[in-house]
Amino acid sequence: MSDENSTETLSSHSFDARNFRRALGSFATGVTIITTRSADDTPVGLTVSSFNSVSLEPPLVLWSLANTSRSLEAFRKADHWAVHVLATHQEALSGRFARAGEDKFAGIVLDQGVGRVPLLPDCTARFQCRNAFQYEGGDHVIFVGEVLSYDFTETAPLVFHGGSYAHATRRDSPDHLPRGAEIAGSFSEDFLGYLLGRAHFRFYARIRPLLTQEQLSDEEFFVLSALTLKNSISDISLGQGLSGILEKNAEDVLGALTARSLVRVTAGNPAAYELTESGAACAVRVISAAKSVEHEVLGSLGPADSPALKSLLGRLLAVIDPEASTLWQAPAPQKISS
Amino acid sequence: MSDENSTETLSSHSFDARNFRRALGSFATGVTIITTRSADDTPVGLTVSSFNSVSLEPPLVLWSLANTSRSLEAFRKADHWAVHVLATHQEALSGRFARAGEDKFAGIVLDQGVGRVPLLPDCTARFQCRNAFQYEGGDHVIFVGEVLSYDFTETAPLVFHGGSYAHATRRDSPDHLPRGAEIAGSFSEDFLGYLLGRAHFRFYARIRPLLTQEQLSDEEFFVLSALTLKNSISDISLGQGLSGILEKNAEDVLGALTARSLVRVTAGNPAAYELTESGAACAVRVISAAKSVEHEVLGSLGPADSPALKSLLGRLLAVIDPEASTLWQAPAPQKISS
Repeated sequence: MSDENSTETLSSHSFDARNFRRALGSFATGVTIITTRSADDTPVGLTVSSFNSVSLEPPLVLWSLANTSRSLEAFRKADHWAVHVLATHQEALSGRFARAGEDKFAGIVLDQGVGRVPLLPDCTARFQCRNAFQYEGGDHVIFVGEVLSYDFTETAPLVFHGGSYAHATRRDSPDHLPRGAEIAGSFSEDFLGYLLGRAHFRFYARIRPLLTQEQLSDEEFFVLSALTLKNSISDISLGQGLSGILEKNAEDVLGALTARSLVRVTAGNPAAYELTESGAACAVRVISAAKSVEHEVLGSLGPADSPALKSLLGRLLAVIDPEASTLWQAPAPQKISS
Repeated sequence: MSDENSTETLSSHSFDARNFRRALGSFATGVTIITTRSADDTPVGLTVSSFNSVSLEPPLVLWSLANTSRSLEAFRKADHWAVHVLATHQEALSGRFARAGEDKFAGIVLDQGVGRVPLLPDCTARFQCRNAFQYEGGDHVIFVGEVLSYDFTETAPLVFHGGSYAHATRRDSPDHLPRGAEIAGSFSEDFLGYLLGRAHFRFYARIRPLLTQEQLSDEEFFVLSALTLKNSISDISLGQGLSGILEKNAEDVLGALTARSLVRVTAGNPAAYELTESGAACAVRVISAAKSVEHEVLGSLGPADSPALKSLLGRLLAVIDPEASTLWQAPAPQKISS
């Protein structure tokens, strides 16, 4: 690699393929599957992140394919191919079409596109193209397609960055400044503790009427929910599983629930508990109502942001609560029909 | 647009530019600024999302530029150009180089690259390229560059999707299933209420020792923090600002703080309060310690995930708490040196 024109030396990385790949990986992309039909009529498809748009008039898009790809011949000769921009839920499909060997199309109900190109369902966008130009691109061929037909939805996309799949979540606009942020020495609405506290309290404010209806305190609700996970739980493991969440003693909460015949003792030392029939029925009512609240809230948040928020909260918990309880790993779940 | 080879009709969109753009926008991309120097030695640069990698050996990358671009001439004739992959904090820079007219390079301390190409600092990755090939691409020219030199960091990227800037946050691996998720009628660790509650309680568990040290209850801490925002706050607006966060009456909490001379009454009806000198000193100690906790936690979470988590929590609050308080919009902040 000659660098003869350089007027300055740059502290640059050597051109080993792994390092260069990592540098390129810093550019985030969507993920596509590109399909065609080979000369012998076999469906061909592979996962491609080197897609991008080129032209509006005429409508052109491009992508690159390695000279060594076993699909190269098919795409070289094809009259048409189709680009499928994958949605956030299609990570498994991306993986399947990225691997060689297996029958990638097995079990997929295909649509048929222009030139009988196999079309995959449920994608964010599909572009059906005429194989317009093929350009030299080093160890790859650059395919430029003229888009003959396309369809798209507003589904959240699958994203690839730094060698991993990612969520894309909309940013706040740059003029969105957290209120109170400029005051030295004070908190602002941007303080994580404030955001978590308010989110927690406000979310529970929506659930609390359900609890009031069932005459349950927050803590009784937590314990009742935990008891739906296993046939029988000792007060010790319940206390551990809900540590930091229960302010009272797990034993006291269990006592109150036992007095109301929602819970009964199954063993003595350590004391173990299970739901009674009416306790299970009560738990199912509240949980299903609480799940509706969650469903409604996440529905307003949208299909990209909901999994991203949950995954970020999970990652936050891995940081601030690395020794999470195993209460929720239920080996022998008590069946409750909902 | 002829569709003569179609064997099936597709319910497709018409080729109006706006719709086609929206369809293309479903493919997420990073954001780059591409720079060169024109024949008269002027630095030229523009924001481009049509970048992608092409080849490893030789190392090639590509991007497209509109035939109508006023920078086209410069890039057509340039021997070299450089691609800057933007980091998450460079949204303003992206906007600046996307607009025509102003002196885009004003105030930026430039590095000088191969062929005296102006290089921007603080980017995620930079690729310095020889202007290798120019291919026809409809209303755009496809530029293929041979990468002569590159540098990169692991900074979180700026992402563009659906016409907006976005955060990219790593996904959980697909074999990460929330524990307890399969049990019908029960909660799982994936329940938003559980995630929020645990995150809130666990985060506060790290702050609580600071409060204990100052002999403050959670509620006294919330009120003390709020009082750092304004010169004087009435118990009514304090109660509203902390509604859903305070379980006790704001008045009672203020009473306890007044008894300890951390807060004093400044007006009668409605009662208004301000921090005393020792109250302000106490607030500053706790707040600065709490901010260290936040800093440490967010440091472990990383530069991409921290702003994404905060922005998602903010969006969640907009959904579940649309009538947020205005307590934090402090018009006349009480200065506290920290």
